[in-house]
Amino acid sequence: MNSSIWRGFASDNYSGIHPEVLDAIARVNDGHQVAYGDDEVTTKLGETFRHHFGDHAQVFPVFNGTGANVVAIQAMTKSWEAVICATTAHLNVDEGGAPEKVGRLKLWTIPAGDGKLTPELIDKQAWGFGDVHRAQPAVVTITQSTELGTLYTVDEIKAITQHAHGLGMLVHLDGARISNAAAALGLGFREFTTDAGVDVVSFGGTKNGAMGSEAVVILNPDLATAIPYLRKSSMQLASKMRFVSAQLDALLTNDLWLRNASHSNSMARKLEQEVRQISGVDVVRPVQANAVFAILPSAVTERLQQRFRFYTWDQATGEVRWMCSWDTSDADVDGFVGAIREEMAAN
Amino acid sequence: MNSSIWRGFASDNYSGIHPEVLDAIARVNDGHQVAYGDDEVTTKLGETFRHHFGDHAQVFPVFNGTGANVVAIQAMTKSWEAVICATTAHLNVDEGGAPEKVGRLKLWTIPAGDGKLTPELIDKQAWGFGDVHRAQPAVVTITQSTELGTLYTVDEIKAITQHAHGLGMLVHLDGARISNAAAALGLGFREFTTDAGVDVVSFGGTKNGAMGSEAVVILNPDLATAIPYLRKSSMQLASKMRFVSAQLDALLTNDLWLRNASHSNSMARKLEQEVRQISGVDVVRPVQANAVFAILPSAVTERLQQRFRFYTWDQATGEVRWMCSWDTSDADVDGFVGAIREEMAAN
Amino acid sequence: MNSSIWRGFASDNYSGIHPEVLDAIARVNDGHQVAYGDDEVTTKLGETFRHHFGDHAQVFPVFNGTGANVVAIQAMTKSWEAVICATTAHLNVDEGGAPEKVGRLKLWTIPAGDGKLTPELIDKQAWGFGDVHRAQPAVVTITQSTELGTLYTVDEIKAITQHAHGLGMLVHLDGARISNAAAALGLGFREFTTDAGVDVVSFGGTKNGAMGSEAVVILNPDLATAIPYLRKSSMQLASKMRFVSAQLDALLTNDLWLRNASHSNSMARKLEQEVRQISGVDVVRPVQANAVFAILPSAVTERLQQRFRFYTWDQATGEVRWMCSWDTSDADVDGFVGAIREEMAAN
Amino acid sequence: MNSSIWRGFASDNYSGIHPEVLDAIARVNDGHQVAYGDDEVTTKLGETFRHHFGDHAQVFPVFNGTGANVVAIQAMTKSWEAVICATTAHLNVDEGGAPEKVGRLKLWTIPAGDGKLTPELIDKQAWGFGDVHRAQPAVVTITQSTELGTLYTVDEIKAITQHAHGLGMLVHLDGARISNAAAALGLGFREFTTDAGVDVVSFGGTKNGAMGSEAVVILNPDLATAIPYLRKSSMQLASKMRFVSAQLDALLTNDLWLRNASHSNSMARKLEQEVRQISGVDVVRPVQANAVFAILPSAVTERLQQRFRFYTWDQATGEVRWMCSWDTSDADVDGFVGAIREEMAAN
Repeated sequence: MNSSIWRGFASDNYSGIHPEVLDAIARVNDGHQVAYGDDEVTTKLGETFRHHFGDHAQVFPVFNGTGANVVAIQAMTKSWEAVICATTAHLNVDEGGAPEKVGRLKLWTIPAGDGKLTPELIDKQAWGFGDVHRAQPAVVTITQSTELGTLYTVDEIKAITQHAHGLGMLVHLDGARISNAAAALGLGFREFTTDAGVDVVSFGGTKNGAMGSEAVVILNPDLATAIPYLRKSSMQLASKMRFVSAQLDALLTNDLWLRNASHSNSMARKLEQEVRQISGVDVVRPVQANAVFAILPSAVTERLQQRFRFYTWDQATGEVRWMCSWDTSDADVDGFVGAIREEMAAN
Repeated sequence: MNSSIWRGFASDNYSGIHPEVLDAIARVNDGHQVAYGDDEVTTKLGETFRHHFGDHAQVFPVFNGTGANVVAIQAMTKSWEAVICATTAHLNVDEGGAPEKVGRLKLWTIPAGDGKLTPELIDKQAWGFGDVHRAQPAVVTITQSTELGTLYTVDEIKAITQHAHGLGMLVHLDGARISNAAAALGLGFREFTTDAGVDVVSFGGTKNGAMGSEAVVILNPDLATAIPYLRKSSMQLASKMRFVSAQLDALLTNDLWLRNASHSNSMARKLEQEVRQISGVDVVRPVQANAVFAILPSAVTERLQQRFRFYTWDQATGEVRWMCSWDTSDADVDGFVGAIREEMAAN
Repeated sequence: MNSSIWRGFASDNYSGIHPEVLDAIARVNDGHQVAYGDDEVTTKLGETFRHHFGDHAQVFPVFNGTGANVVAIQAMTKSWEAVICATTAHLNVDEGGAPEKVGRLKLWTIPAGDGKLTPELIDKQAWGFGDVHRAQPAVVTITQSTELGTLYTVDEIKAITQHAHGLGMLVHLDGARISNAAAALGLGFREFTTDAGVDVVSFGGTKNGAMGSEAVVILNPDLATAIPYLRKSSMQLASKMRFVSAQLDALLTNDLWLRNASHSNSMARKLEQEVRQISGVDVVRPVQANAVFAILPSAVTERLQQRFRFYTWDQATGEVRWMCSWDTSDADVDGFVGAIREEMAAN
Repeated sequence: MNSSIWRGFASDNYSGIHPEVLDAIARVNDGHQVAYGDDEVTTKLGETFRHHFGDHAQVFPVFNGTGANVVAIQAMTKSWEAVICATTAHLNVDEGGAPEKVGRLKLWTIPAGDGKLTPELIDKQAWGFGDVHRAQPAVVTITQSTELGTLYTVDEIKAITQHAHGLGMLVHLDGARISNAAAALGLGFREFTTDAGVDVVSFGGTKNGAMGSEAVVILNPDLATAIPYLRKSSMQLASKMRFVSAQLDALLTNDLWLRNASHSNSMARKLEQEVRQISGVDVVRPVQANAVFAILPSAVTERLQQRFRFYTWDQATGEVRWMCSWDTSDADVDGFVGAIREEMAAN
């Protein structure tokens, strides 16, 4: 990590801007455009999202994933309602309390080993309807791909949306890594969102090559009216919106989203396959997107972290997380695997 | 407005990104950097701000001006406290209720003809200390340059900070257009902020040539601890922070902030001087920064707005606002003045 | 004020519990009742309120007036909306910021000399519909009788509700002293609320002889669903509700509300008439309910406040407020007037 | 349940007001008293609480238990901080989301079989200090006696406070049934609160014979300043406070608190002992205060609930909760036990 230019396996948001995204920003930089979203770039982005999510989809760009989630779920809840999520949901563990503090949301959490909810798991919290003492469950949120690198199949999502809708609840999908999910499933976005009954998506661009651009995508048209107001009152409305929109549009142009996501997924698979051959390193979760979770001796982890950046996921078990990103190279993986071998051998 | 490239006088945030800012973004795009602000660019930005605001200044980049204001003032208040501001403050009228809705802030507003508070005006709301029925005044916020295009002198700011501190209150300065103010005053930032007793500044970059970058600048070190947490819980923490920081750093490099702000200010003065010569057009407020407020016949306004974008400020009086920005050209002003002449003549 | 038992003119909530109210509490104290409102006393209270406010009225007892207002207005607003009120409204000045801090409400305030809004005044803030930068005006709240002791006529209220509804807004009536208003107008509650188009009322019992009992009264049935949830989530749901309900029921039984309010109103009129004869004491507002506002020399005020409790309303002008309550006696007024005469003579 | 006067085993807040409490209310009903707590009764209550909790204790009466908890914990947290509690805590499951919605509190929950936290359990959530992505653990809250009818010993509480303080956290004790705990432990309040290192207590009166009166009791003097403001801004400030204070004072006079709590505890023990002799009824938790949890056949539960009110605690397991209260009589228990026998026999 001494050289000024380096790449690691800490997070896909350690990566920079894909050149096509940076070009897109530069291309829309001439002259004035109406601020706050009434610009030509954002108008075109609407078409782009309708193409990918269906004719009734509406896209509202925001700054970051926490913003997308909290704006989205506020539109799906009344002020006394609550959200059901996995205990491991980013919404629960990694948003600094923004759901509670900005959105006034009560989270009803459910332990889920692989980060995935099911109708049966949802039922552990989906009760007490009509009881004023219980913050009313109104939304189920799932993450695709999950915080543990796993994937929901289309059928699994359909089972959840049918179950939730049957109970009068709505379904939100946190798609911070939605492109990795689509690439891994070999599907378009629409098949596992709109067509699977999802009501609202948080669409992630930043981790997949954008500079900083996410969006609330409304699939259930009843929920759209609130978003412009909530986006402003939640401080997620960009004045020079054209540059936020241009990033998302670049990702969805010429399949950049798919090229980037497929690449990071394949780097994770490569990493998985190679470390599986190293004795003493256990890959402990299915590698279905761009994350590899492994357990290795803590002394090895410590030495490795001197050479490559990555996070310890669970101090108690020694589990670590290795994320691949759009700019991870074959050489990066090879170098990292070599280092793991060296440090394991030195153990 | 038919051509795809145009410039108007609606707002300085209708403008694009200054080329030096865009270059700076591209320059920091190599390799990985630690996310969420622990990167080299943000570290360097700290030095840059200390240079401009004094050795104890601490800078925390955020996404937008509403975010800067609400994060800053939350750090300055306890949950039962309140903020004193001019009725015309952006915080009061243009932030979609974010101060109340995200920050739980009570605003005690004071009518101020020219958008400027004074110790005497502040006293209209700075009372009731210790009375639990009255949300406790804890912060005075002023805007520099103001929403009405006026400026506080250094002495005026010192009078406010001394008065506020004497009453146990802190002072926040909303500097969405702080560069225009500094350029107009012929001063560095420090003279009218740190040295004048201001506790916290919202530093604006977006309107002065950035793509989307503002910052909370803590001058009173007691207030710094809270900001990292509040920035996250208020959804204003960028993951790829290096690109937000790079924009601010570019503005503060080679005096780009000053070149841009001086230019927009001078365009406003040029516009003022020329329209003052048009009979029937009244410039109704001092032109001290980059805004010109004028009253002209409403029929003229309507026809002009077909040709150039700008906002009617007060429907009742016919007052309009013309903003100049870093990219306003002499030719833009000449063309606009010519159009005003034509439409006035046609009246 | 040396004796342990005294009465003053500070506030109608300095008074105690009317004996008939205390009896009513004792009468419902046998055995168990279902907690949280599903009890026989509260059920009967529903009938009582339907009798007074019309067949569609629904009553939800709460603890205090701030609670009634904030629960009520939350049910009338979405999370990005705002409330229009007079600058002098209790909601704005005397609730410790609870509307902003619990209800996340933006208040758009309007100076109103006599504490009363009009359609013309409302228009000063009822604008910007559809503009996300402006917290959307959604509710007009008026106080009856006002914080300045004045009254709205039925026609004045109808003008407000028609105007507000025409703009898509709802109307809330803060009836902390609604009984004083009804008594002074010589009307039932219904004539100036339900029949005048008011959507929701905060019904006050405490100041008129209860121990501590107020209620949200829903007149627009669309708004009722939210109240039970908001009452709980806003911490205004009593467990032993029967005792809160019994207080309101007692007030509405055998016209106790009217007897108490008529009495306090008449005591205020008596006080007004007598002090108007004292040279140097100016009664400065119409005395239409149970409050008298007067200006007298500050030295006199100081000496008087050694003898009787009352509040200075405006330090700058020397205006004081004298409130009469259900237990103010003729002798109390005579004694107070005598003291005023003595202190004025000593001046 | 046909007769108008009945008693059941649903909740201790189904009971009425103890006669000594009602007398106390009547006794302070003469003349005027300063509103909002500056009255003689509340002043005396301060002495009473100092007697019971130590010389530095400060008492702030509020309306209800949710209010006490949320006011207390707001004073113990900054706006980005979080609270550690058992999953079964009333704060988490039964307050309609008020902690999140009024207090903006993030709750970090921990499954605890018997409703009791330990240092080891606390460590499952007490981590991530300094990480802005994790809402910062700042308070541990425990309930005494717990929602499952169990008790912390003095040593168990001391272990928790030492552990929490060592990590820089504060400790709150939800004492909705604190009198039942003290009675069961055979201790004064002070021994397991002040002397055990607890920082703030929510003191419950309502369930133990009051009409509606709880209090925030500050034991750590640093936290007292905030409470008066938070009590008002959280809508928990009674205007005619003397009547709220009088209730608590009555409970703490002539050991009424102890008589009531000892009685309800002893009724629970009697109930436990008798149902343990009924074959097919399993008492499934330790009976340490005034609650009995049992499992019996669901058909029996259904028939019993036609005759006596009580709640099913867990639909899945058939567990029911039977609460005894200050007014539960021996005959009530005998009658109920008889009914259980009958319905079991009929099964």
